[in-house]
Amino acid sequence: MSEQTHKSSAQSAADETARQVEDIPAADGADVLDQLTTDEAADVAEALDPHTAADILAEMEPDHAADVLEDMGQPEASVLLSAMDPDDRTDILSHVEEPRREEFLQDLPADDAAEVRNLAQYPPESAGGIMTSDVTALVEDMTVTQAIEELRRLAQRHEQLFYSYVVDKRRHLIGVLSMRDLILAEPHKRVSEIMIGNVRSVPATLDQEAVAALFKKYNYLAMPVVSDSNKLLGIITVDDVVDVMEREATEDVQKLFGAGAEERLTSPWQFSFSKRWLWLVVNLATAFLAGWVISLFDATIEKLVVLTVYMPIVAGMGGNASAQAMSVAIRGLAMGEDVGGIIKRVLYREMWVGVLTGVVVGFITAIVALVWHHSPALGVVVAVALILNHTLACLSGAGIPFLMKRLGFDPAQSATIFATTVTDVAGFFTLLGLASLCMRWLVPA
Amino acid sequence: MSEQTHKSSAQSAADETARQVEDIPAADGADVLDQLTTDEAADVAEALDPHTAADILAEMEPDHAADVLEDMGQPEASVLLSAMDPDDRTDILSHVEEPRREEFLQDLPADDAAEVRNLAQYPPESAGGIMTSDVTALVEDMTVTQAIEELRRLAQRHEQLFYSYVVDKRRHLIGVLSMRDLILAEPHKRVSEIMIGNVRSVPATLDQEAVAALFKKYNYLAMPVVSDSNKLLGIITVDDVVDVMEREATEDVQKLFGAGAEERLTSPWQFSFSKRWLWLVVNLATAFLAGWVISLFDATIEKLVVLTVYMPIVAGMGGNASAQAMSVAIRGLAMGEDVGGIIKRVLYREMWVGVLTGVVVGFITAIVALVWHHSPALGVVVAVALILNHTLACLSGAGIPFLMKRLGFDPAQSATIFATTVTDVAGFFTLLGLASLCMRWLVPA
Repeated sequence: MSEQTHKSSAQSAADETARQVEDIPAADGADVLDQLTTDEAADVAEALDPHTAADILAEMEPDHAADVLEDMGQPEASVLLSAMDPDDRTDILSHVEEPRREEFLQDLPADDAAEVRNLAQYPPESAGGIMTSDVTALVEDMTVTQAIEELRRLAQRHEQLFYSYVVDKRRHLIGVLSMRDLILAEPHKRVSEIMIGNVRSVPATLDQEAVAALFKKYNYLAMPVVSDSNKLLGIITVDDVVDVMEREATEDVQKLFGAGAEERLTSPWQFSFSKRWLWLVVNLATAFLAGWVISLFDATIEKLVVLTVYMPIVAGMGGNASAQAMSVAIRGLAMGEDVGGIIKRVLYREMWVGVLTGVVVGFITAIVALVWHHSPALGVVVAVALILNHTLACLSGAGIPFLMKRLGFDPAQSATIFATTVTDVAGFFTLLGLASLCMRWLVPA
Repeated sequence: MSEQTHKSSAQSAADETARQVEDIPAADGADVLDQLTTDEAADVAEALDPHTAADILAEMEPDHAADVLEDMGQPEASVLLSAMDPDDRTDILSHVEEPRREEFLQDLPADDAAEVRNLAQYPPESAGGIMTSDVTALVEDMTVTQAIEELRRLAQRHEQLFYSYVVDKRRHLIGVLSMRDLILAEPHKRVSEIMIGNVRSVPATLDQEAVAALFKKYNYLAMPVVSDSNKLLGIITVDDVVDVMEREATEDVQKLFGAGAEERLTSPWQFSFSKRWLWLVVNLATAFLAGWVISLFDATIEKLVVLTVYMPIVAGMGGNASAQAMSVAIRGLAMGEDVGGIIKRVLYREMWVGVLTGVVVGFITAIVALVWHHSPALGVVVAVALILNHTLACLSGAGIPFLMKRLGFDPAQSATIFATTVTDVAGFFTLLGLASLCMRWLVPA
């Protein structure tokens, strides 16, 4: 009895939420469902009209949407999936484990299921992975009147009708038409006469970052995706690219610091811990490398303990200078500024910036050393160590991302590990090494 | 004579380049001109047809385009400006100093000049600053046939005809029509009957980041910009927003490390130096704070020099843990994940991640200390210092960006300075403080 009451009160809460999200944009509805438990969200999704529910689930993070879908009753989940755009449907199903995934596919209409299997063959971060196959294709010998007829017929199914692509009989891409071209054309002309013939397309295997770079540079609103033999497979619209760019920017920043690209503000601690600990352990190894360098000079430190005050300054300032150089290099590479021969210009620039910032920081530090520890010799040693470390820091901070890219790695991935290792090791080595060499002036016998 | 020869060879080089860029996309042409000196680029721009030159200059960085424009001959520059879209023209002229700017405005047709003055009143980073005033407005009582007529008439002038906005007699925004709606509608219907009435717009004063967030969330291709009294002022298209997002992502990463948001891979060293040195000097002050903490414990270090090996490990690992937490927080805030009450969840998560990564890293370090320096007590002291510093690091790394935002600052701006100061000072203090307290076990008398 109490079970019964509980159930119906959960049900009425779900109905109430469903009424609220019905009339707001799908992205806002997705925010509402994201705040609920999977169980509650599934109740709301069942209470909604399938098309509304499909739009909302398409706006949620695909993994959460997949959880909600799996929690829903079987007929409702299938109806919802059928109402979804092919690319969103494929995305969400890619987060459903077998054998549930196969069950969902069995329940879909045969051609929808075939489309999912077809789209699923492309890696999720490729052009094929982000495209939708709902693309408007007009055959070259249609007249303008026939083309408009065809578009009217397709209008129920296809959302984005800004461009129509023109194909030959065997679906090879041969041109593009904007709605404007169609509106303004004389009705009896053939599509092939008014189309723009030289249409830029992307192969389905192209990486999504390269796709985003093309959109950015040429201000496209949509681009067709083609197979190796130039057959039209689908379309990527700029709103997909906006999502890609945002995700890539987040990945860049987070990978730079060894936080997983997938972490969000709302991630639970178990997830965050699992994504972060390994990078810290790798860093620990490099920290021990720096510690080992210090251990080589224990006799020097014993003679002049004040050096320990300047150790974190020389190493840390090098780390800061390196991070500045690295952030400019990584963003430049991400934005495709890496034109031929630029590396030489960059290293030349960084050498000067390293020397000059080393001089500024070294000069100030030398004055502080003079005032605080009354030792001009100490000031000189620290200043020279700072200048050497800043120069190496700027060169390596800018050079490492280029090197990573040349070697085929992501320039952002863990570049900071290498950079701070360089500046720590070099910082301790130059400061303590110089101090050892100059010990007779530093500690007058 | 030799001057004459020189001139004509420069001229023929410019003609040659002009022929090359004529047939490639404007963005590629802009890349070519960006590689030239201002002088050479101005020669090429003069050799080009004004419309092509206008498209190319619009794709260049506005400050460089302004330099090229100022270097061009007077009639050519004015013709080129007239051929440009109003938002690009305003952008470029905003980089021309008075009195040259006023001279350019005098040479423009009166209504073009008025438009520039009008657009220039909005801050460059507001909706008004990034919109174009070339917007297609249909009056509500037009028929579909009249509307298509009007669009045909405007087609020469306006590039983007994906949406048409519907206004009343006094140009108040009341609806929106897609090209598709027009194509599919019956010709005798009134525009007001087929439009979508509930159109979302942005006020001209809205910050561009907020505009970008709306586009991202709702997948818009264009949004109308309105005045306080809801009059239609212009339109922002998604390609403008893509540029804004890219610029903001770069600013976030570079500001995080105290490199100026404006630096590029190609920046000369003078520019880079001028943008970076101040942040390094501020960092130097915080590095001295850490050095001062070390100096408090010089007696402890003198008794146990091996502590110096572990100093960079405890401080550095705290810095790494803090950077991970911070990167997630900053990206989350940038992507608008900051919903009410999330700060508590974030700090709870970070506390656990800090404790647990501290335990992992501390355990490994303790084992190394045992094997390397044969001192279990040292291992325990270092491990406890690591756990304390990791916990504080994660809490402060995530908390500082939230605090900066609450105080009205950019969360990314220099957040790393505060974070590394916390982890350095706390790292040295906990390690050396604990060592002082436990000295009797660390150095058996």
